[in-house]
Amino acid sequence: MKKLIFILLILAGCTAAPPDTALLKKELMKTDQDFSQMSMDKGMRAAFLYYVADDVIKLREGKFPIFGKKDLEADLKFLPDSLIHLRWVPVKADVDGSLGYTFGKWEMRLALPDTTMFGVYVTIWKKQDDGSWKYVLDGGNSTPKQ
Amino acid sequence: MKKLIFILLILAGCTAAPPDTALLKKELMKTDQDFSQMSMDKGMRAAFLYYVADDVIKLREGKFPIFGKKDLEADLKFLPDSLIHLRWVPVKADVDGSLGYTFGKWEMRLALPDTTMFGVYVTIWKKQDDGSWKYVLDGGNSTPKQ
Repeated sequence: MKKLIFILLILAGCTAAPPDTALLKKELMKTDQDFSQMSMDKGMRAAFLYYVADDVIKLREGKFPIFGKKDLEADLKFLPDSLIHLRWVPVKADVDGSLGYTFGKWEMRLALPDTTMFGVYVTIWKKQDDGSWKYVLDGGNSTPKQ
Repeated sequence: MKKLIFILLILAGCTAAPPDTALLKKELMKTDQDFSQMSMDKGMRAAFLYYVADDVIKLREGKFPIFGKKDLEADLKFLPDSLIHLRWVPVKADVDGSLGYTFGKWEMRLALPDTTMFGVYVTIWKKQDDGSWKYVLDGGNSTPKQ
């Protein structure tokens, strides 16, 4: 009987449902949408520091990347949050296990001067031990008006 | 006896070694290094079309992305391969299952005018059914001289 229970326990562990990729993609799309919503509601700085992983790489056009949450925090310190509004829409997501990415379109509105800029982005995400997704790399480019 | 064999077969399937992430990262770094080598040896066009996945997204600064291998091929058609030399070095790779990415530094030498440009890139890779890695997204930014 003990042996049977033992084998059953092993089999139970073995037959754990494989991760549902479609579900994980949805989850990541939703996370990225929430990220953009937070950027609109609470400002870019709050959002970029909330969803960031400690070992992030942040790419920037014409500048060296920023490595690590600490340096990102320092870089965002003087961001005029009230004058810059960045939002975006993920268009595609893919996930395998704890690694995923989103690709989408961004729109940045500046107050002074009153300008809107457009672009695309790629964000790479890692699922954390607590089940949340944090971005480990973020980059993008300007495009003409979308 | 049949039952025992059945259970043993199930257990054998269950105990298949989990993918060795460190090995997969090395494999992806090597693929990206080979990609750069091909770009130097056979030109950008040949390399970017050899390692590309059919549903690629190619980001470009100041322009809309290119979607799909066919459109990338059309875009690269008139690339003056003899006048542009692009090479790069991956600095980091991460993989989970069939999804991975590399981050690194690139250097582009133009013949006319004689100029060298620098930048960083992110390439997202999917492992194909034949075991090869192909890039599904590629983007990057210019940086100051590295």
